[in-house]
Amino acid sequence: MAFLEALRAEIGAAQVLTGAEAAGFGREWTGHYHWTPLAVARPGSTAEVAAVMRLASAAGVAVVPVGGNTGLNGGTHAEGALMLSLARLNRVRGLNAATRTVVAEAGVVLERLHEVAAEAGLVFPLTFGAKGSAMVGGFLSTNAGGSNVVRHGSARALCLGLEVVLADGRVMDLMTELHKDNTGYDLRDLMIGAEGTLGVITAAVLKLVPAPAGYGTALIGVESLEVALDLLNRVQAGSGGAVEAFEFMPARYMDRLARLKPELACPFPPQPVNILIEIASTRADESPSALLEEILGGALEAGLIGDAVIAGSEAQRRKLWLMRESAAEITFTTPNLVDTDVAFPLDRLETFLHRMTARLAVLDPGAEELVIAHLGDGNIHYTAYPTRDDAGLRDTIRAAVAEEAVALGGSFSAEHGVGLSKRPTMAAHKNPVALEVMRAIKAALDPRGILNPGKTLP
Amino acid sequence: MAFLEALRAEIGAAQVLTGAEAAGFGREWTGHYHWTPLAVARPGSTAEVAAVMRLASAAGVAVVPVGGNTGLNGGTHAEGALMLSLARLNRVRGLNAATRTVVAEAGVVLERLHEVAAEAGLVFPLTFGAKGSAMVGGFLSTNAGGSNVVRHGSARALCLGLEVVLADGRVMDLMTELHKDNTGYDLRDLMIGAEGTLGVITAAVLKLVPAPAGYGTALIGVESLEVALDLLNRVQAGSGGAVEAFEFMPARYMDRLARLKPELACPFPPQPVNILIEIASTRADESPSALLEEILGGALEAGLIGDAVIAGSEAQRRKLWLMRESAAEITFTTPNLVDTDVAFPLDRLETFLHRMTARLAVLDPGAEELVIAHLGDGNIHYTAYPTRDDAGLRDTIRAAVAEEAVALGGSFSAEHGVGLSKRPTMAAHKNPVALEVMRAIKAALDPRGILNPGKTLP
Ligand SMILES: Cc1cc2nc3c(=O)[nH]c(=O)nc-3n(C[C@H](O)[C@H](O)[C@H](O)COP(=O)(O)OP(=O)(O)OC[C@H]3O[C@@H](n4cnc5c(N)ncnc54)[C@H](O)[C@@H]3O)c2cc1C
Ligand SMILES: Cc1cc2nc3c(=O)[nH]c(=O)nc-3n(C[C@H](O)[C@H](O)[C@H](O)COP(=O)(O)OP(=O)(O)OC[C@H]3O[C@@H](n4cnc5c(N)ncnc54)[C@H](O)[C@@H]3O)c2cc1C
Repeated sequence: MAFLEALRAEIGAAQVLTGAEAAGFGREWTGHYHWTPLAVARPGSTAEVAAVMRLASAAGVAVVPVGGNTGLNGGTHAEGALMLSLARLNRVRGLNAATRTVVAEAGVVLERLHEVAAEAGLVFPLTFGAKGSAMVGGFLSTNAGGSNVVRHGSARALCLGLEVVLADGRVMDLMTELHKDNTGYDLRDLMIGAEGTLGVITAAVLKLVPAPAGYGTALIGVESLEVALDLLNRVQAGSGGAVEAFEFMPARYMDRLARLKPELACPFPPQPVNILIEIASTRADESPSALLEEILGGALEAGLIGDAVIAGSEAQRRKLWLMRESAAEITFTTPNLVDTDVAFPLDRLETFLHRMTARLAVLDPGAEELVIAHLGDGNIHYTAYPTRDDAGLRDTIRAAVAEEAVALGGSFSAEHGVGLSKRPTMAAHKNPVALEVMRAIKAALDPRGILNPGKTLP
Repeated sequence: MAFLEALRAEIGAAQVLTGAEAAGFGREWTGHYHWTPLAVARPGSTAEVAAVMRLASAAGVAVVPVGGNTGLNGGTHAEGALMLSLARLNRVRGLNAATRTVVAEAGVVLERLHEVAAEAGLVFPLTFGAKGSAMVGGFLSTNAGGSNVVRHGSARALCLGLEVVLADGRVMDLMTELHKDNTGYDLRDLMIGAEGTLGVITAAVLKLVPAPAGYGTALIGVESLEVALDLLNRVQAGSGGAVEAFEFMPARYMDRLARLKPELACPFPPQPVNILIEIASTRADESPSALLEEILGGALEAGLIGDAVIAGSEAQRRKLWLMRESAAEITFTTPNLVDTDVAFPLDRLETFLHRMTARLAVLDPGAEELVIAHLGDGNIHYTAYPTRDDAGLRDTIRAAVAEEAVALGGSFSAEHGVGLSKRPTMAAHKNPVALEVMRAIKAALDPRGILNPGKTLP
């Protein structure tokens, strides 16, 4: 094929994988989707990414960008398309401790950013289970969330500047490190969360925050979500807004965890609602752990808390975090599940869970539920395990979750994005005028429709 | 004119102002720009805004949205165009204390939002000198900044949802109150800061924050910006990131202030760098004022501080704030000035000021400078007062400021936006590919080019 020949000439034959070499790229992390790409291109620089896009655009070849391939919505599905791997754009171009910024290429792995920041006494406060594989371009293109959003926001809030290669190979340089920059339309935020359909992110300027002088971390068992949210407000008020994470694990999650990873079993008899809470502060004059203990002591006296442990060492803290970070493993071990990612105003979470339990009992009596949540953000990963392998049933359950979410003023996609799996939901629930505007923008920026076709837009 | 007749039929003759009635709308706050609009339409609802846009779009009439008309870049200039005033869309549709959100229409004045939030024990943390006139639609369309950006971000960071009427009258409903919502392109942030060129904002969901239990506010005199930035880091670290404002007033500003408003004179002999600093906390167990005093005490011992006063009462706190909020009056009293709005990485501010002083001395020996800054954001309002009334000279100085800003990795428009006055700078300094993308989006969303034509895009 002339296109592949031209590609090899442009970026080197060794960087164009086909056949068996490309096979590892043909599936999603969850195993939900499988495909056979035309080839995988591994350019080594922004200029080479631009060259790939120029060739693809001239040939009308579909291009699917791929980072760590840990997305959870089929976004990297690439049947017959060219996969554009950013893995070789893996330089940290520079870190400026004075301005607390780091310039990283799209292929830098999230965990590496954590390390690079730590070496400078700083923190890149985005983290989630897939941190060992997910890459800058991927977490920006999905506007990933994770466990520190309650304090630091999603990926979007941590990005100051971007470098993007457009569908036709033009390079758009938006690489500012400024916190304030009102010079025209917000093209950066348009590219963030666009899931590879509007451009290929090649580099970013990311915000860092000072490393806390200490953490206070606890696992708390309470009887209901209502009590948990009351507790969140108490800790926020009492710590001056220092809550870094507020993660919910129900009793059923703790049961599964104890079975799969006995060493991570809940240190007390699991309560209906178990919360991993962490506060942090740069203040050297007081211990966040002591402050947390004091606030929780008050809550205990008020009868809000059933049981609790406070991490007394960094090792204990890591163990509590591992309990939470095992979520994907715990959730995805059973096949044929229905995983979702919904968000709500905080006062409507409990209603949603009650309604879904009732509704699932009708749709598939005997089906199990598993819930895990970034509770501080109102973001619930609700998973259903149907009693039988039935794609139609799975679709029905998925649609029911989205319906209940939207009916309660919630979102049918909180942090994972739309990709392939949530296109029908987009068609059903997204504001029609917003869809028209999205289509108009897509047509304006990618008139040949070669960038990640069939994703995000229904 | 048939268009005006149709308009009167649609929204009522009393709401279509022409001639003398419309005269008050024909100038900008600064007095820089004057114009004669075709008419001023004052629709009373989103549906009426949509009707106005349908008529304008059919007739090909240019439409300039206007809120409080306090913008500082000629953005509401409307020679021969229809001005669309949002002033009558002034309902606060609702406030939810549990989710800390308020739904406000585009014509709600900023100060009213402050009041409504305060009644619920909450704060809307966006504030600047024009708060008594600026409106929701205006501060979102310019992505306004102000004095609390260092902690709470610009207007963009405080907006969760939007309702927008497009050029052809379609209503786009993005009115979510969710903190996490990854359902397609970020159209909200595209509309924010678009200065009325992509759509008319009719309502928004805005974030509120809990009211602090107390404030610590001080005016501090130090010898240089470098020392001031060192101090900022100390107070951030020592307070756990509680700095709400960090505003810079140089000695020359203090001199002008003492002359114009003797009651607001600096309480100590002005130092080269005078900083209004404020910290705040929801914690009931400690006083921010005492904490600030302690941290500043340490800085005093370290020899960093020349002089300082801490506000001992709310009245004293208000007085310190009035010193800062008089900036626009102080700056704009002299005619023929060159006002600018630039931002820098924090470590390059001092270099910029030195370079500009040298450059101005060459361009116009004898010209005066005045600087006022949201220092915590690296945002400087640099104003030059040329010795003669010479438009060419003003343009040259303006271009020099932008050039020096960009050369140092800064922005030529930090918070006021582009509007009319900074179009030449956009042409000179904005990334050309970004300009092409902006134009493509503009053409896709407003194909007839009727929304605020001639603004933002060069
Ligand atoms: C164990 C596990 C835990 C997770 N936990 C969370 C969580 O807590 N919160 C959360 O938000 N997400 C979570 N995720 C999903 C999350 O979205 C991804 O892990 C991550 O954001 C994607 O990064 P990636 O590099 O793997 O992207 P990929 O999977 O490679 O790509 C994701 C999407 O972005 C596009 N893309 C990738 N790179 C680029 C680029 N350079 N330019 C343009 N488009 C690009 C792709 O085409 C695709 O549509 C989890 C996933 C796993 C497996
Ligand atoms: C004394 C003073 C102090 C100021 N201090 C600051 C400061 O510290 N920080 C800062 O950022 N700014 C500051 N400003 C400028 C600031 O940009 C404006 O005050 C404010 O953001 C604009 O609000 P407005 O309602 O007056 O908008 P307008 O002036 O009416 O309009 C501004 C722009 O937005 C467009 N627009 C207005 N309403 C809509 C709508 N509903 N839909 C679409 N487009 C619309 C207009 O067409 C125009 O282009 C100051 C101004 C003054 C006069």
